[in-house]
Amino acid sequence: MREIYLDNSATTKVCPEAVQKMVEIMTEHYGNPSSLHLKGHRAEKELESARKTIAEMLSADKEEIYFTSGGTEGNNTAVFGAVNALKRRGKRIVTTAMEHSSVMESMQKLEKDGFEVIYLSPDKSGKITPESVANALTADTILVSMMTVNNETGTIQPVEKVGKIVKKANSFCLFHTDAVQAFGKIPLKPKKWGVDLLTASSHKIHGPKGAGILYLRKDARIVPLHYGGEQEHKLRPGTEPLPNIVGMSEAVKALPDMDSEYHSMKELNLYCREKLSHIDNVYIHSDTDCLPYILNFSAEGIRSETMLHFLEEQGIYVSSGSACAKGKKSHVLKALELPDSLIDSAVRVSFSRYNSKEDIDELAKALINANNTLARSR
Amino acid sequence: MREIYLDNSATTKVCPEAVQKMVEIMTEHYGNPSSLHLKGHRAEKELESARKTIAEMLSADKEEIYFTSGGTEGNNTAVFGAVNALKRRGKRIVTTAMEHSSVMESMQKLEKDGFEVIYLSPDKSGKITPESVANALTADTILVSMMTVNNETGTIQPVEKVGKIVKKANSFCLFHTDAVQAFGKIPLKPKKWGVDLLTASSHKIHGPKGAGILYLRKDARIVPLHYGGEQEHKLRPGTEPLPNIVGMSEAVKALPDMDSEYHSMKELNLYCREKLSHIDNVYIHSDTDCLPYILNFSAEGIRSETMLHFLEEQGIYVSSGSACAKGKKSHVLKALELPDSLIDSAVRVSFSRYNSKEDIDELAKALINANNTLARSR
Repeated sequence: MREIYLDNSATTKVCPEAVQKMVEIMTEHYGNPSSLHLKGHRAEKELESARKTIAEMLSADKEEIYFTSGGTEGNNTAVFGAVNALKRRGKRIVTTAMEHSSVMESMQKLEKDGFEVIYLSPDKSGKITPESVANALTADTILVSMMTVNNETGTIQPVEKVGKIVKKANSFCLFHTDAVQAFGKIPLKPKKWGVDLLTASSHKIHGPKGAGILYLRKDARIVPLHYGGEQEHKLRPGTEPLPNIVGMSEAVKALPDMDSEYHSMKELNLYCREKLSHIDNVYIHSDTDCLPYILNFSAEGIRSETMLHFLEEQGIYVSSGSACAKGKKSHVLKALELPDSLIDSAVRVSFSRYNSKEDIDELAKALINANNTLARSR
Repeated sequence: MREIYLDNSATTKVCPEAVQKMVEIMTEHYGNPSSLHLKGHRAEKELESARKTIAEMLSADKEEIYFTSGGTEGNNTAVFGAVNALKRRGKRIVTTAMEHSSVMESMQKLEKDGFEVIYLSPDKSGKITPESVANALTADTILVSMMTVNNETGTIQPVEKVGKIVKKANSFCLFHTDAVQAFGKIPLKPKKWGVDLLTASSHKIHGPKGAGILYLRKDARIVPLHYGGEQEHKLRPGTEPLPNIVGMSEAVKALPDMDSEYHSMKELNLYCREKLSHIDNVYIHSDTDCLPYILNFSAEGIRSETMLHFLEEQGIYVSSGSACAKGKKSHVLKALELPDSLIDSAVRVSFSRYNSKEDIDELAKALINANNTLARSR
């Protein structure tokens, strides 16, 4: 049976370019980038070349890119690092009700530690309005954290507008965006947008798991989460996971032209919407201006997990929300004020360049099949 | 020119078994272990099988093994995690003057935060005596952290004895050991030894960079350093770096029999000592009962970095201390009270199963050559 992988927002297949380079690093240029001999220097050269590739992707300086072990660590480092650097100037943090668990749970920990956290609610389309951010900002707000693209619905947040509002309202307040689902898919210009901290991950763009970056604007300062050696300017000490890092860099290089890829995904997304619109009881939650890589919908009456397992039996892999939430009721769909019957039946499909219209045809067929087969369980 | 890699305590070449399995995971079983579909389950199965392999290596339960991104994160999580869990019971921490920077700098951070840290000095052989630990323990000591094997000299510390002393002195005090240089090389029995927390890393034993484990004894509790998803029982959330983790597990499986490997290394170490004993101005710092994988010596009068670059010109890669310290004066050799002339000329060679006596012959030849060529710089 052919595998139809429609869960690319959870993780992706590693592209051959990344795999090839990783094998080379592991078996030939395996030196420690901190070693002072040639084998170390060669590894360091690879490290810095990867940093340059990623910096260019973000129109950033090389010195603003810090390698991390992935998205969760990046988000944790940004949130705790900013708060620890600024806690003497205020105790208020502004975020949204739609963040990834790695931001959400960091915020909950900070609340326990005595910080005041404001969770902004989205409008009906899933968007956080720039006005709501402006209204929430006070003179003692030290951090604003708002994701660029939501991982469950694909909603694109107005990061550029919010960046300008934050900078105007409060010169020391840091602005962080979790761009894990946006990186490599839409243009990101943190410097131009007034973003101080930006998180990205390798394994959502056909790079390996175990690598990511934190963009930290040159004149912004945060307190590290890790302590040890001199690596990453002491912001993230520890031997760099070089195979993963070059894998991420090769994955970035292997990305198709962003514009044309966006249009291919839009086409796939519209094709999928069209197909779904003919299926009984299917309701689409992702707005038409969401990131086209993600499409969230419900087949009302069929529980997400039941559907997920029904689809996997036909070799189709989708998600019932975020992989990191593992079966918990989606806080994102709750924030959208969807009725429970739709939250409990929500399915996320997420596309990559390895998907085709034939995959969508199979999905649609399977959904119709599910409607018929699983009808009794309604 | 043949490469002679004698810097295996800095990092190692990844073994073919690990590379092969990693490629398989990245291109076939690339699912997210948290995904609820078959592709996720398959990945989760690989994750749990790797956990079992590592648990067996430590005579531990599967549930006591937490995957991390590597040694620094493991040590950070252990030290800060233990202290944050116990800070209401005391403010005193006992460690040694010979720890790796990832423990050392964590301790310095804790001192800034108001904790009292006792740095025990070694005896002349580099050992921390169990008596000195016993004397340092008070009723408000919450953590003892002592490495198993020193990364610069190979000194094996009396972890088993210290474990018993700590447990007898103070029932809530946690005992952590950084076993990064010991894992896979000598038997480690944390549970039997009274060790609550043990750190190990993949890339020192021919696994990839970017993976490690923290052993946490079943009934011990620490506060996490990271916040987010449900992974690793919430002690280390974030998508698991599965390729790295299976790479570590395959590297463990590919390790030769520990006893016979230890004897091979001992033979290589003694052969090297014998060769060095005939070279003028060479002083060996590693005691004969050190871990045989590591040999630290000085060629007095030739600065470490000069020697390192002279050797690399002949294709021989060694270290001038710890890779993570990158050129700083060794705090370990200082703790041994060596004269500056020997600290400044210290060289660490570290062996692996890929080294042979011929490598040592080449090293000895090159050292004699260095003595002649670099004599003028004395």
